Amino acid sequence: MNPSPVSTETLQLCRDVASRASNAKNPLRKLDARGRTEILRLIASAIRRDAPSILRENQKDLEASSTLSDALKDRLRLDPSRISAMAEAVDRIALQPDPLGSNVEERTLPSGIHLQKRRVPIGVILVIYESRPNVTCDAAALCFKAGNAVILRGGKESAHSNRAIVASIQSVLGTIGLSDAVGFVDSPDRSAIDALVQMDGIIDLAIPRGGPALMKAVTHSATIPVVKHDAGNCHIYIDQHLTGLESKAVDIILNAKTQRPGVCNAVETVLVHSRVAPLIIPRLIEALSRAGVEIRGDARTQSLAPGIILATESDWATEYLALILAVRIVDSLDEACLHIRTYGSQHTEAIITTDQHEADRFIAEVESASVMINCSTRFADGGEYGLGAEIGISTSKLHARGPMGAQDLTTYQWVARGSGQIRS
Amino acid sequence: MNPSPVSTETLQLCRDVASRASNAKNPLRKLDARGRTEILRLIASAIRRDAPSILRENQKDLEASSTLSDALKDRLRLDPSRISAMAEAVDRIALQPDPLGSNVEERTLPSGIHLQKRRVPIGVILVIYESRPNVTCDAAALCFKAGNAVILRGGKESAHSNRAIVASIQSVLGTIGLSDAVGFVDSPDRSAIDALVQMDGIIDLAIPRGGPALMKAVTHSATIPVVKHDAGNCHIYIDQHLTGLESKAVDIILNAKTQRPGVCNAVETVLVHSRVAPLIIPRLIEALSRAGVEIRGDARTQSLAPGIILATESDWATEYLALILAVRIVDSLDEACLHIRTYGSQHTEAIITTDQHEADRFIAEVESASVMINCSTRFADGGEYGLGAEIGISTSKLHARGPMGAQDLTTYQWVARGSGQIRS
Repeated sequence: MNPSPVSTETLQLCRDVASRASNAKNPLRKLDARGRTEILRLIASAIRRDAPSILRENQKDLEASSTLSDALKDRLRLDPSRISAMAEAVDRIALQPDPLGSNVEERTLPSGIHLQKRRVPIGVILVIYESRPNVTCDAAALCFKAGNAVILRGGKESAHSNRAIVASIQSVLGTIGLSDAVGFVDSPDRSAIDALVQMDGIIDLAIPRGGPALMKAVTHSATIPVVKHDAGNCHIYIDQHLTGLESKAVDIILNAKTQRPGVCNAVETVLVHSRVAPLIIPRLIEALSRAGVEIRGDARTQSLAPGIILATESDWATEYLALILAVRIVDSLDEACLHIRTYGSQHTEAIITTDQHEADRFIAEVESASVMINCSTRFADGGEYGLGAEIGISTSKLHARGPMGAQDLTTYQWVARGSGQIRS
Repeated sequence: MNPSPVSTETLQLCRDVASRASNAKNPLRKLDARGRTEILRLIASAIRRDAPSILRENQKDLEASSTLSDALKDRLRLDPSRISAMAEAVDRIALQPDPLGSNVEERTLPSGIHLQKRRVPIGVILVIYESRPNVTCDAAALCFKAGNAVILRGGKESAHSNRAIVASIQSVLGTIGLSDAVGFVDSPDRSAIDALVQMDGIIDLAIPRGGPALMKAVTHSATIPVVKHDAGNCHIYIDQHLTGLESKAVDIILNAKTQRPGVCNAVETVLVHSRVAPLIIPRLIEALSRAGVEIRGDARTQSLAPGIILATESDWATEYLALILAVRIVDSLDEACLHIRTYGSQHTEAIITTDQHEADRFIAEVESASVMINCSTRFADGGEYGLGAEIGISTSKLHARGPMGAQDLTTYQWVARGSGQIRS
């Protein structure tokens, strides 16, 4: 796949934003935890102060959004309470413990050298995202919290909103000469992404958040490291050892499908062991149908619940992000794991079982970033995991996996303090 | 930069090795620490047993090496004691603590869910390296130790030796049906690298070890994550606060330059504060000259040590890997850090100073993977840092930085154990 050609103008814009972010790295590293906290509190206030202008600019985005789906329009829309929530998120990030405040490891070596594996900022982080304007604010605050410069590249649908939010943030950073610490690529040109992800030596990490097309574009162009925040095709497997957990199984699936169907940790396929299927399928389908969920089952499921739609091969591979659920009956845990390995995205899977040994086998076989035993897939979340605010949920295997908090926006540096030691 | 076209035959070979390695992942995950240790002990014995055939094959590589430099021939050459050392390294890796044996974190959440951040193997690791055949054995043993399948892609100069070493290792793995856990790309075709680094979904990580040309080729083709093991242009800065450390400064530089000049953590440029230069430069140059080191200094250094060669711009950027040292006089710590940021490779830098505050400033300003205070750059090493055996020294900023041991060949998986929790 060849990246699209980049126009001179776009390239110039990207180089300018990136080199200014890179120049901000050094002064950023000199801010201590207290300084960073203070600035974040001021940013939260600025967002509140600038709410009227942000809403005005958001209105322009909404007026241009007539061709978008209702779901996308909803993601795009800001109102006073959403702006408050944005500012509150920044305040919460400000109050989180300093992600740079502790050493990863520390020891004295036999040579007498004292060795620290010290947390340091990554440097310059590029965040590429789609329509939700609050990501602009969250990503800027989280990257700043961990001492990083950030380059924001949001969707063109929210350009006016993003510009206004960035202006508000930069009004605070400007007071200490650091407005370049939050850079904004203000261009609808898609090739800007190709240009940015090839700036190795200037940009240290790309975090793309979005669908498969964005992931592919970034992966195939990038010469800088990428931590993907991709889709989730999540599964729940109901094991044959279920005595006493039957109602909880139904509740968990209902929660995982309906509590917030449009997010990446919602369940998309349920696999049921054939020994418990006659018992659980009718109860499950009844509860789900009552909640407005459309069921697409394999032939065996259909035989237990006449009237449901027959699932096709493509259903197993689909992340619906909607009130639709695929259901399949399997004859063993191994068959369930094989299904998950074949169709899953290694985001989050759950098993409902009373058998600890089967749970451990499931954990080892599915290889996913998060595995739930007897609880909802919806718990795969930075807030729930106790990370505080999250930059997203990584679907990459390296650097950070699953929910990714401020500390995952740091790397480390080895510091060896000696008294004249030489190596023999 | 366009990757070279890949021939059908090479592509077929790469796909075959990779898919067999991928199929080995699941059985590998089922081996416990004791099983992996036992296999490693057997591999060490097999290497000792097969020494005669490995030496015979190595002889073929040496016979074909007439066009290589003496240094490269030396790297290529095996003898009985080098084979013993190879087997001993495997025994040492076997005895190291289990890299998968501990959780990264563990806590009970307010919901009552017990959360573990559990260490797991990365999966399939591709190691690309140059002429030294012992890397074949080290890399296979370290990847296996951490439960990973490995794909080895060594230099064509050592093809016979590598083939014999892999055969010896696979003879052990074959007894438990796991010979595919150590794959070997047996082809001199350079485009094999392009093919392999684009196998996302099959290969999880590429570790290239070598010079800038290899790094560039890998970075520009790769769609899989890469942790580079690149060159080191390392610096030592002699600060103005030096009272009492003068002799140690000379000893440290002598050690960092001459103890093993051909390795990446040897020093290449020394920066001296102008206030101490008149005192330290003559002593330093005398000691280095006596050790056979050629000095290339800037004009100010030359004025203190007549007869030395004048350094040019390209000297500052050169990793000599030889008994040559560049020397430059600077007027401040900031000027030293600016030089390092301009010409350095963020591998390892050292400062010699009695002033703690200046040391801390240096650490923050240079941003390198390892920073030494008052000791030799040669300590930037997995063995010295207490990591046990190392796969190499990462010059990437993400996933692993600096010396990289068995635990750096793992990632993690979140496991949440509940009792029916749903999210509200």
